[in-house]
Amino acid sequence: MGPGPSDVHPRVLAALSKPTVGHLDPGFQQLMEAIKASLRYVFQTDNALTYPVSAPGSAGMETCFANIVEPGDKIIIAQNGAFGARMRQNVVRFGGVPVDVTSEWGHAIDPNAIEDALKAHPDAKALAFVHAETSTGVLSDAAALCGLARQYDVLSIVDTVTGLIGVPVLVDEWGADAVYSGTQKCLSCPPGLSPVTFSDRVAEVVKARKAPVASWFLDLSLVMEYWLGEGGRTYHHTAPVNALYGLYEALMLVEEEGLEASWERHRNMHRALVSGVDAMGLTMPVAPQDRLPQLNLIQVPDGVSDGEVRKALLQRHNLEIGAGLSAFAGKAWRIGLMGQSATPSHVLKFLTALEDVLTLQGGKIAHGVAVPAAIQVFNELDIGH
Amino acid sequence: MGPGPSDVHPRVLAALSKPTVGHLDPGFQQLMEAIKASLRYVFQTDNALTYPVSAPGSAGMETCFANIVEPGDKIIIAQNGAFGARMRQNVVRFGGVPVDVTSEWGHAIDPNAIEDALKAHPDAKALAFVHAETSTGVLSDAAALCGLARQYDVLSIVDTVTGLIGVPVLVDEWGADAVYSGTQKCLSCPPGLSPVTFSDRVAEVVKARKAPVASWFLDLSLVMEYWLGEGGRTYHHTAPVNALYGLYEALMLVEEEGLEASWERHRNMHRALVSGVDAMGLTMPVAPQDRLPQLNLIQVPDGVSDGEVRKALLQRHNLEIGAGLSAFAGKAWRIGLMGQSATPSHVLKFLTALEDVLTLQGGKIAHGVAVPAAIQVFNELDIGH
Repeated sequence: MGPGPSDVHPRVLAALSKPTVGHLDPGFQQLMEAIKASLRYVFQTDNALTYPVSAPGSAGMETCFANIVEPGDKIIIAQNGAFGARMRQNVVRFGGVPVDVTSEWGHAIDPNAIEDALKAHPDAKALAFVHAETSTGVLSDAAALCGLARQYDVLSIVDTVTGLIGVPVLVDEWGADAVYSGTQKCLSCPPGLSPVTFSDRVAEVVKARKAPVASWFLDLSLVMEYWLGEGGRTYHHTAPVNALYGLYEALMLVEEEGLEASWERHRNMHRALVSGVDAMGLTMPVAPQDRLPQLNLIQVPDGVSDGEVRKALLQRHNLEIGAGLSAFAGKAWRIGLMGQSATPSHVLKFLTALEDVLTLQGGKIAHGVAVPAAIQVFNELDIGH
Repeated sequence: MGPGPSDVHPRVLAALSKPTVGHLDPGFQQLMEAIKASLRYVFQTDNALTYPVSAPGSAGMETCFANIVEPGDKIIIAQNGAFGARMRQNVVRFGGVPVDVTSEWGHAIDPNAIEDALKAHPDAKALAFVHAETSTGVLSDAAALCGLARQYDVLSIVDTVTGLIGVPVLVDEWGADAVYSGTQKCLSCPPGLSPVTFSDRVAEVVKARKAPVASWFLDLSLVMEYWLGEGGRTYHHTAPVNALYGLYEALMLVEEEGLEASWERHRNMHRALVSGVDAMGLTMPVAPQDRLPQLNLIQVPDGVSDGEVRKALLQRHNLEIGAGLSAFAGKAWRIGLMGQSATPSHVLKFLTALEDVLTLQGGKIAHGVAVPAAIQVFNELDIGH
C-alpha cells in the first residue's frame, strides 16, 4: 500500500507465467492489437499511436521528451513534486530549454501561473505537467492545463503514471498530446511497462524533426513500425512478451469492471480512509480538493519516527507504505489505494495496522475509532467490507 | 527455435507469477544482491557495475553508448551484421563519430582490419563489436578484439546478447569494458531485461563526462544509486519486480548446470544439428569455424519459398524459426538452439519438421537420413535423446 507497485490480481500473475512465444508470432500480434484497443479505452482516446513502451514509467516519460524535444526547444514545465523535476531533467538532457513554473510541494498546479508562462513565452514548444503527482498525492486539473496548451498552440505532455484507471483520464476530451502512464499503479500489473498515447500533432512534430531522436530504443518512428505495422510488422526490439500477457489480463479486468466504476471505487475507498485517518486525529497535508484518491499523504504525528513506523508496519503486519519525499521526507507517509489495492479490506487493514503501530510507539492518537469511522462510510455507501 | 525468445523453463515461468513486492522491500533487495552475484558468475567478472537493465537488449546496448559516447567522440564499429549497424545508429544519435570497419554478412570480424583502424585512428575512444551476431549466427573472436582495444588503449563495447551462456563470455579474462546481453536467448527467460557489466575504466570515463548522459532512464550514475546503493538504496525507477524473479530463477538453473557444461551442451546440440542438416543435403552459409552453436544459418534450398516453409512449420508443427535478414532475407533461415531450447528433442523435432515441410513443398533433399545422422552424433557423445 505504498506509491506502487500495487497488489496484482491472481489472474494477472497467472497470465505472466504462460509459455513465451515469439514477438513476431501471428498469435502474439493479435494480442498486441487487443492491447492497443484496450489502452485506447483506458486512455479514452482514438489516437493511433497508443501502445505500451517496453520499460517502466520513466522510459515512458523519456519517450515523450526524446521524441518531442529538439536542441534549443523551449518547454514550460509545471513543477509541484518529484516527477515534475524529473521532467525538467529530461528536457535538459535532450538539449531543450526548460521554463520552470513551480508550485509548493503538496499543492495542485495553478492554471493562472501556467497561463502567465504561456503568455511570457510565445515561442514555447510544449507544456509539460504531472496530472497525478506520485510524490505528494496531488491531483492537478489536466483538462484546464491541456486546454491552455491548445489555446496557446503548444503541445501538452502529461504524466499520469499514478492517475490512469484511478481518476478520469480523458485524453481526447482534454486534447492532450503526449500522455504516459505505468502499469504498477492503478492498472495493478507488475512494474515494467509504460502505456503511452500520442496525438496526430505529436506524430507531425516527430516527422518534422531536424535532429535525430537521441535514442534508438525509444524512437517513435521506429517503434511504430513494430507496434503499428500493417500487413507485416517490422522487428524493432524484442517485446517483453510475458509482461504483455499480464498487461492484457489487467486491461481485461478494467474492462470488466468499467472505467466509471473503477473511478468511483477509488473515490469511495479514499473517502473511507480519510474518515478513519481523521477520526484517529491525524493530519493530511494536502487540501481536500487537491487530493488524489489513490495516493494519500498522511503527516507523521509528533513523537514517533517515520522509519520505525514503516519498519514495524512491514514486520508486524506485512504491510508496505511509502515514505515522504523531499519536503515531506521523514514528515509524511504515502498510502496507496491503487487498483487491486483499493478495497475495503485494504482500508481496514491499514487503519488497524497503523493504530497498532502508533500505539506501540507512543503516538498521540484517538484509539478505537478509525475502523468504525471507515465502516460507517462503507455502510453509508452500501459497500460490503 | 528462432533467434530468441527461446523456450522458458517451467521453474522460470512459475517464478514470474509470484506475488509482486515493492522495489524497495528489504526482501527484494536481497534478491537484487543475489542477481548481481550470479550475473558476475555468468559474465565471469568481478566488476562491481554488473546489473540487469530494466528493458530489453536494445536498451542494454543504448546504456553502453549513452554513457560512454559524448558529442564528437570517435568510435570504431566493427560491422558484420544487423546489430553492428544498430551500434552505429547509437553512436550517431549520441553525437559520436562512427568509424566503420565492415565485413561481409556471415563472416567473423577480422582482427587485422580492426588493428588497422585502431592504428589509423589513435584518437578513437572505443571499439564496439558484436561477439555473437544474432542476424547471421556468426561468432567473432572477442578475446582478440578486446585485447586489441587494451593494446591501443580504447574502451571495448561488446554485444553478446546471443552469446552469454551459449559460448564462453570471459569478461575479465578478455579485459572487456562494456558488455551487454539479453535474457531471452541462452538465459531462457522471457524478453525484457538486459544484463550489463562495466569495468572500472568505464566508471572513470562516465565520471569524467563533460556533457550529461542523454538519457535519465539509462544514466549509469543514477541507476547505480539503486542497484549498488549500500546502506540504503535510492529510488531511481521502479524495477520490473516479477521479471527479476524470473531472471533469478534462470540464473539458478545456469548455476546448477554450470557454465562449462552449458557451453558443452550448446556445442553438442549444434554438432548434431549440423550433422542432420548436412545429411539432408542443405547448405549452411557460415564457415564452420565462424559458426555460433546456438544460432544456425541454413540456406533456403532452390525451389521452395522461405515464407511458406516458415508458415508451414508454425502451422503443422507449432515450430517457429527465424527469417534471414538483409543480405540473407528470403535466402536463409535462422535456427536457434539456445538455453532450454538446446536439447536433443529440439534438434530432432526440427529435423523431422523441416524434412516434412520441405518434402511437401518439393524441396530437393535427401530423405530419411537427417534424424539418424543427428542420433549418431548423440550416440557418439553418449547423450540420451
